[in-house]
Amino acid sequence: MPVAKLGNPCLLRMGVYLCGMIKAGILGGGQLGRMLLQAAANYPIETHVLESDPDCPAAHLCHHFTAGNIRDFNDVLAFGRKLDVVTIEIESVNIDALEQLESEGICIIPKPSTLRLIADKVTQKIFYRDNQIPTSEFEITESRDALQQFPDFFPGVHKVGTGGYDGKGVQLLETMADVALGFNERSVLEKKVNIKKEISILIAVDRNMRMAIYPPVDMVFDPTLNLISYQFCPAKLSEKVFQKSEAIAIKVVKDLKSPGFFAVELFIDADDRVLVNETAPRVHNSGHHTIEACYSSQFDMLWRILLGYPLGNPKLIMQAAIVNLVGESGFSGVAYYEGLEKILEMDNVFVHIYGKAATRPGRKMGHVTILDTNDSALLHRANQIRNTLYVKSASNF
Amino acid sequence: MPVAKLGNPCLLRMGVYLCGMIKAGILGGGQLGRMLLQAAANYPIETHVLESDPDCPAAHLCHHFTAGNIRDFNDVLAFGRKLDVVTIEIESVNIDALEQLESEGICIIPKPSTLRLIADKVTQKIFYRDNQIPTSEFEITESRDALQQFPDFFPGVHKVGTGGYDGKGVQLLETMADVALGFNERSVLEKKVNIKKEISILIAVDRNMRMAIYPPVDMVFDPTLNLISYQFCPAKLSEKVFQKSEAIAIKVVKDLKSPGFFAVELFIDADDRVLVNETAPRVHNSGHHTIEACYSSQFDMLWRILLGYPLGNPKLIMQAAIVNLVGESGFSGVAYYEGLEKILEMDNVFVHIYGKAATRPGRKMGHVTILDTNDSALLHRANQIRNTLYVKSASNF
Repeated sequence: MPVAKLGNPCLLRMGVYLCGMIKAGILGGGQLGRMLLQAAANYPIETHVLESDPDCPAAHLCHHFTAGNIRDFNDVLAFGRKLDVVTIEIESVNIDALEQLESEGICIIPKPSTLRLIADKVTQKIFYRDNQIPTSEFEITESRDALQQFPDFFPGVHKVGTGGYDGKGVQLLETMADVALGFNERSVLEKKVNIKKEISILIAVDRNMRMAIYPPVDMVFDPTLNLISYQFCPAKLSEKVFQKSEAIAIKVVKDLKSPGFFAVELFIDADDRVLVNETAPRVHNSGHHTIEACYSSQFDMLWRILLGYPLGNPKLIMQAAIVNLVGESGFSGVAYYEGLEKILEMDNVFVHIYGKAATRPGRKMGHVTILDTNDSALLHRANQIRNTLYVKSASNF
Repeated sequence: MPVAKLGNPCLLRMGVYLCGMIKAGILGGGQLGRMLLQAAANYPIETHVLESDPDCPAAHLCHHFTAGNIRDFNDVLAFGRKLDVVTIEIESVNIDALEQLESEGICIIPKPSTLRLIADKVTQKIFYRDNQIPTSEFEITESRDALQQFPDFFPGVHKVGTGGYDGKGVQLLETMADVALGFNERSVLEKKVNIKKEISILIAVDRNMRMAIYPPVDMVFDPTLNLISYQFCPAKLSEKVFQKSEAIAIKVVKDLKSPGFFAVELFIDADDRVLVNETAPRVHNSGHHTIEACYSSQFDMLWRILLGYPLGNPKLIMQAAIVNLVGESGFSGVAYYEGLEKILEMDNVFVHIYGKAATRPGRKMGHVTILDTNDSALLHRANQIRNTLYVKSASNF
């Protein structure tokens, strides 16, 4: 089949092989888009971004920026119709428009059907249950009052079906006395897991459903902001837990039946049970270390999938840690990076500032990657960075 | 001094620390600008590019692209006046305008005086002689006829003072019978060196004249195109030759008396004498491996210098080779990368395509970096790439 030989059906469709550049679009222009575009410059691609804020982190790094709403049917449709392939950097996009584009022959990665399944935490949980994928026990609640029906699920975690992001739309309910904190909309009530460890497994899936699996990542969360504070790769796991985790992550991605890049977040509980927490159908915060630590970064890998190229090598060059830089509480406005020069003096450290003009408490403003052959040196350095670098606002400087 | 504490005098001058972003400009928008801008996205910088071709490799990766002639006084002056700091990615720029901008308080890196010295091969050679820096014997010729006066300099290499680039403006004159091939303008006639090896040493110099020195690079040139075909880092040198080479490169950069990024190209002759061939006052083709192979790439390093940050770590993470991708002879027009998918299947290989729409014979279209812990594997892989990947034009596809 000549199309397969070309490696990319999109190419032939628009005859773009002959005019040199594939037209690729990203819905969303945040830091994930920014890092995707940094990686895109290694390949012959014409890049397009749709995002409402013309000063977003990705806006200046693409060939063509379109100001528009990624949640609006017409904006997404008009944007996608000019392109050969479209991907996302955030789940909350207009999926109806992506389905329409797919029916018109535009390559959408991940598939809109997979995106729809994942974008709603209710359908995502049902997907795990239906596919015998281990996940925490749950019930679906259509209202706040419905929480009263499930006394066995406390302490529990209440998660809104759609619209939650970065800790918003997730509420811990310790006892039934906390019911008033729950969401009065279609949500999932999960039994709280006795978490020993939280890990992420990144998996790339090409158009022929071949996979490249990255080594697992240990994630250490900030309890207040629900943002990853540190991460280490490879995660320290017993051989048995590692095998179990990887098998589960592979099953999740296989059952999702879509090419794309996926981050499967897993809980390891006190009894070494492995449970799927959730899956992101896109490049992910837990994969930022791959830029320097792996032969093919998560961003490079997604371009390979979008362009129909062979998958890259997910192996580690060196073990790595990252520290997320989030806006300090008490500071809002023009960002200032206190301690940045001290970090830049460190030998095996890589700084990534996302170029967001304004900081606010908890906002993801950048990350720092550390490479080291030595475990404890990695941890020491991560702590040092955490206690040196602060995102504040210029007015307090 | 509070200015020094801020790390960057430019910052205070325009008060930009308070509005968050330093405005940095690049004269030229080729692949060096492109890779500079990929690296810039790790830092809070507002980027500007001046270049006549709005479809150049760097145009879409900056915040603000200005279409203009980098050799035109008014274009460079108007471009620079909006900025805090200006650098170059090619030597043939309007240096008068840069001097004017410097006098108006704009940071120009490298210094225009250093750029002027280097941009003319005649003054560059005189600089080496005046500073007792070993270089091949030479004479200055004002016309083609003047070549007749120096029979002792054949076989020799004739190089035009200004305007030469990528093999243009350089002519081998084997015997005096070749005099007609010489340049009828101010040029340098050098005695041909019996070259055993050609190496490059990259050195970063910050505003306080502190240096970061990269491991030397072995360069293997294509005899027809005078473009680097392969390079290996670290270069295989005896301890004695290594010490001598590094000492000479450091002296060159010290005597140039300017912050910036420098590539000192050196000949090792049959008697292990080390001679300076030429110096580039900018990021350089011989430093492309630093993107993946070093903790701080040449592009990252130049930004650190421009922004007044501490220098990065020039050490190797792993030894590396690069293969340059140049347009095949016999092909002109829209570029097609034959064999690209085979290269992308290789595990420890990094592809960089510069995104130039049209190829022509000998044009630099990209490069491929290979990391390996094993010498012979590196060489084997470099040869494999050289015999697999070809830049041709789409019309022949």
